[in-house]
Amino acid sequence: MTGRECSIANALAVVGERWSLLVLREAMFGVRRFDRFAHNTGASRDILAVRLRTLVAAGVLARQQYSTRPPRFEYVLTESGRALSPVLMGLTEWGDRYVTEGEPPTVWEHECGAELHPATVCAECGGSVEETTLRPIRLGRVPT
Amino acid sequence: MTGRECSIANALAVVGERWSLLVLREAMFGVRRFDRFAHNTGASRDILAVRLRTLVAAGVLARQQYSTRPPRFEYVLTESGRALSPVLMGLTEWGDRYVTEGEPPTVWEHECGAELHPATVCAECGGSVEETTLRPIRLGRVPT
Repeated sequence: MTGRECSIANALAVVGERWSLLVLREAMFGVRRFDRFAHNTGASRDILAVRLRTLVAAGVLARQQYSTRPPRFEYVLTESGRALSPVLMGLTEWGDRYVTEGEPPTVWEHECGAELHPATVCAECGGSVEETTLRPIRLGRVPT
Repeated sequence: MTGRECSIANALAVVGERWSLLVLREAMFGVRRFDRFAHNTGASRDILAVRLRTLVAAGVLARQQYSTRPPRFEYVLTESGRALSPVLMGLTEWGDRYVTEGEPPTVWEHECGAELHPATVCAECGGSVEETTLRPIRLGRVPT
């Protein structure tokens, strides 16, 4: 790995692949089984098997046996996997706004009754997070 | 494209590639020129050239001429590109917490004076966005 030391790069080493993020999307919708992941994402079974192994090894999904004869497994989000929901929500909102033509395919409702549009704020003060309200106080090192 | 109709999938068709997201990270840090993108991301020049073309075609970066003799161009974030910051902040926070060993390589300060930890909230009520406070009211269709 070359380039800047960076948690984005580190995160992408684990989940930075199209099928991985689509598997995690399905897991957030409650999907747990191989065949449904394959059908709902459109991933080939070979690629899906590799991605699931990687996600389990990285602790993002947990593999749980739900039948002993025959042996069968399902995949559930761990705490780490659930913690990716801001990334998936952010991609959804951006895709709805800048890429998808027509109505948003997926809509969530917040418990307040509103259709969900996620906003990113400072956890400390609740103020908005954008270019003008931020400054970097440390940047990851770039190898020379 | 098979699988569920989904703005995450649509977003990933544009920015769902490691080098694309690392280029956008550098653009958020103020980098504009090919050589710095190459150095700071570690991408090969060939791959970088393709990714920049794709990002410009998708309207995420704008290509601007800054010298006529010789002709030279730089790349700046568009509104659509800046709107990806919640995704990049989300990946940073998740990578810091679950992947990177040791101290976070990059730290931002919010204008309130706190070290930035982004939180995702409902834009309408400001309440927390998590599994227990959301329900899907429409899911993208899965082709049968």
